[in-house]
Amino acid sequence: MARFTNMNHLRFLLFTVHHIEELFTYSRFAHLDKEQAWMIIESAELFAEQELFPFFKEMDETPAKYDGKGGVTTHPQLKKIIQFAAEQHWIGGSASFENGGLQLPEMIFNTGHHLFQAANNGVQGYLGLSSGAAGLITSFGSNEQIATYVPKIFSGEWQGTMALTEPQAGSSLTNIITTAYPTNKGYYSIKGQKIFISGGQHDACNNFVHLTLARIEGAPAGIKGISLFIIPKFRPDAEGNLIYNDVYCAGDFQKMGQRGYSTTHLSFGDNNDCHGFLLGEQHKGLGYMFQMMNGARISVGQCAASVAMAAYQASVQYAMERPQGRLPNEKDPTNPPILIIHHADVQRMLLTQKAIVEGALSLAMECNRLYDLTHASENEERDTCFLLLEILTPIVKTYSSEQGTRSAALAIQILGGYGFTTDFPVQQHYRDLKIMSLYEGTTGIQSVDLLGRKVIMNNGKALRLLGQTIQDTCEKASVNPILLPYALTLTTEWKRLENVLWHLSKYLLNGDTARTWPMQAYLWKWPDIS
Amino acid sequence: MARFTNMNHLRFLLFTVHHIEELFTYSRFAHLDKEQAWMIIESAELFAEQELFPFFKEMDETPAKYDGKGGVTTHPQLKKIIQFAAEQHWIGGSASFENGGLQLPEMIFNTGHHLFQAANNGVQGYLGLSSGAAGLITSFGSNEQIATYVPKIFSGEWQGTMALTEPQAGSSLTNIITTAYPTNKGYYSIKGQKIFISGGQHDACNNFVHLTLARIEGAPAGIKGISLFIIPKFRPDAEGNLIYNDVYCAGDFQKMGQRGYSTTHLSFGDNNDCHGFLLGEQHKGLGYMFQMMNGARISVGQCAASVAMAAYQASVQYAMERPQGRLPNEKDPTNPPILIIHHADVQRMLLTQKAIVEGALSLAMECNRLYDLTHASENEERDTCFLLLEILTPIVKTYSSEQGTRSAALAIQILGGYGFTTDFPVQQHYRDLKIMSLYEGTTGIQSVDLLGRKVIMNNGKALRLLGQTIQDTCEKASVNPILLPYALTLTTEWKRLENVLWHLSKYLLNGDTARTWPMQAYLWKWPDIS
Repeated sequence: MARFTNMNHLRFLLFTVHHIEELFTYSRFAHLDKEQAWMIIESAELFAEQELFPFFKEMDETPAKYDGKGGVTTHPQLKKIIQFAAEQHWIGGSASFENGGLQLPEMIFNTGHHLFQAANNGVQGYLGLSSGAAGLITSFGSNEQIATYVPKIFSGEWQGTMALTEPQAGSSLTNIITTAYPTNKGYYSIKGQKIFISGGQHDACNNFVHLTLARIEGAPAGIKGISLFIIPKFRPDAEGNLIYNDVYCAGDFQKMGQRGYSTTHLSFGDNNDCHGFLLGEQHKGLGYMFQMMNGARISVGQCAASVAMAAYQASVQYAMERPQGRLPNEKDPTNPPILIIHHADVQRMLLTQKAIVEGALSLAMECNRLYDLTHASENEERDTCFLLLEILTPIVKTYSSEQGTRSAALAIQILGGYGFTTDFPVQQHYRDLKIMSLYEGTTGIQSVDLLGRKVIMNNGKALRLLGQTIQDTCEKASVNPILLPYALTLTTEWKRLENVLWHLSKYLLNGDTARTWPMQAYLWKWPDIS
Repeated sequence: MARFTNMNHLRFLLFTVHHIEELFTYSRFAHLDKEQAWMIIESAELFAEQELFPFFKEMDETPAKYDGKGGVTTHPQLKKIIQFAAEQHWIGGSASFENGGLQLPEMIFNTGHHLFQAANNGVQGYLGLSSGAAGLITSFGSNEQIATYVPKIFSGEWQGTMALTEPQAGSSLTNIITTAYPTNKGYYSIKGQKIFISGGQHDACNNFVHLTLARIEGAPAGIKGISLFIIPKFRPDAEGNLIYNDVYCAGDFQKMGQRGYSTTHLSFGDNNDCHGFLLGEQHKGLGYMFQMMNGARISVGQCAASVAMAAYQASVQYAMERPQGRLPNEKDPTNPPILIIHHADVQRMLLTQKAIVEGALSLAMECNRLYDLTHASENEERDTCFLLLEILTPIVKTYSSEQGTRSAALAIQILGGYGFTTDFPVQQHYRDLKIMSLYEGTTGIQSVDLLGRKVIMNNGKALRLLGQTIQDTCEKASVNPILLPYALTLTTEWKRLENVLWHLSKYLLNGDTARTWPMQAYLWKWPDIS
């Protein structure tokens, strides 16, 4: 039984809360049933237990490290994990049959990945990136591109990455300057720098497929001039030989957490020999990339929930084994100490964690379900699922990362001083978790996405659908006297939230976005601020 | 100008908010004036700038490490820092003239230490512990004990520590089993284990003075049987030679933060040759130790505020130098990006930090002021200051550590991905800060202290005094139309808080402390909890 998550709870989420069996009534998933689903998830548990979890601490203590000559050295176990994961279809399993996958719903595939995230979250990143990169090529690539790259990624030989961020631009993709110069030879010549490229050019894979945003020379300014390129580290020639493609890894960022996970600085075309292959049409790159980005945001939200779950499990275990202190009404100091799970404050901290991690994981699973339905269903059902998924994406990303951090902090508190030492995993969970509120758009960026795009999209239809779903749930819950007070609270809070959102969106729709002036004046006019 | 704090703000706190000059009207501090006070603080700034801050990152990257043979290797700069600090009176400066100090008020002494905490918080711990240990010996020791230990600690040759925690007891001091066997030779023979002993037996000092809680053989059970001992690593004999006193350092805990600061496991009397010297009377050790403990709690609160201040300063600096993105109403992508301090969400995060760190630092300074007055004033004034300090101690410890962590998390958010990398200090601030909610009693323990002791002490007098002080401040603030709404909010919130506290203390006074039963039942009866 996994120590880093709760298999009974996963079963409860899949079968009792989110009804995975309903997916199997759609033709896309008709080849599966509940028993098979659970068997697949149990195989992920075994893999996580045997190959990932035992290396969680070791990979933190021997971080991915730049080798000084274009590569990143990782823990030797990583290569084994990637190969094993590939064999067990944990990279390509959710792809369609025609693309070499098992056509697994994300509800199964990502529950497997939840186990990897909870066991060793940095490692899961390598697998998730490959999976997302292959998905992007499948969606928008030519048959030749799919045939060239996807099987190699699914086999674990090649690593997929997403290359967006540039040093001078950060989150502002408008400002990327990596340039693609057209040639008449079927490729673009690429020049530019990308930073924070997770999974980039390490020693556990033979080749790298960087899905890279760049600006074709002469393209319009802003995001409407961004195109998406496949840029391998080694490009295959007509005979299938691999030729170095002038993608140089110039360094690896050292971090406070996820230390086993490489975070590279890539330099494209230093020797003017970097070939980029346009994916889809020119100037539409950002839209394409958002397929992978949205998947990554949900995955980051799920990862935060998973790491918080692992910290919760570690703290429950500690609380049930550690004797310390007495109940307040026990006056006799000669009586033996009690297990700390009997202390009110420890219970408060455990239940707070339980509420956060189970809630966040359920939210992630709902996103996976909606994703599956947007691919399995049609017409109005599809549209509804799509809109709900759109509005839930920034929410699952943000709730799980911000509250997950709070949850892991409580796990440390339960262990006391021990929680701060490297003898226990909770401090690593806490450190690893902090990246989740930064990956794929910080909490601030997610807030802009939620209010600036998702709330007002389709005249507020996504928000209304979400409100209706919540209201339906509250009504169902109200017949149960234990749940009734919670349903009433949620109904009231949702109305308050809706009012706030509509109030704010009025300003937004009127273009009055600069409502922060008084603060700006304050910051700039008082020289003592710093 | 220090980059890790704001000297103008310190001046504002000392002279405009907390009126340090009022202290100089008391005979204990009559030898000082404002100009001298500021000169002393500026000397601390220079020291922190030149000797502490440049080693902040290095000490994190080369942690204190057990040498395998009874010692802990620290960064070479530490020895230099301790010696320099001793020369500049930053260990003994607040002691009375007759004990070799400068009789500095804590308002000056600890403002100096704020600079050390903000510059390199782990290092300040070594100095603060020595200072507190010497203070404890001065308060309760014999003239001979004072003469033997205090000058050596003040000179930085010997390190003071506090040795309370034992592996099996944790926070539950009732359960300590380290035993002192009486002899007829003027010492006790000590046997036992202590863990988490900060500053224990490293290579930057020649000797260690462990102020150790132990139980004299045959003492009553519980906290009423605990005595306090001076236990040096090397004991001076009649000729002043130092003889190894059988205090063995058995290891050093590795931690997620404060990595330059040693955290040792000490074993007393493995060879039955550990002499302990009783401090004060037998069985009164816990009461004595609380002098040092209370000082340490305030110091930890101040340290949390100081580290959060350093993180805030780093994020302000970044926000004022980093161009990225555009204001929402700027549609032209060819216009240059703005500094991120212009973004509303960055301002929100900066102002939240500012409110937390300046508030927490002011609270710490108020505690320092009250401490000084309990030593300088008499009769009713003294009693009032004492009660206020008693109730504020768990508050400054908890508010600063919990909210300081929140504040440092915002500093990371402002730096985005860079904030998670070791290229910037904010991630180290965030890691270091997490210990502050654990040191000297976790947040849960502080809550028990606040509600179980401080709120109900003297029939609630401390709480009423605090309420009156807050009410007086609100009334003064109400004449200013800008402050009026804040004063009204604080008045309302304080009343609500008071109602909650009185409501809860009713149960406590009736002995009905076991109001957590339903949660216990829930945790134990549902096997799926884990």
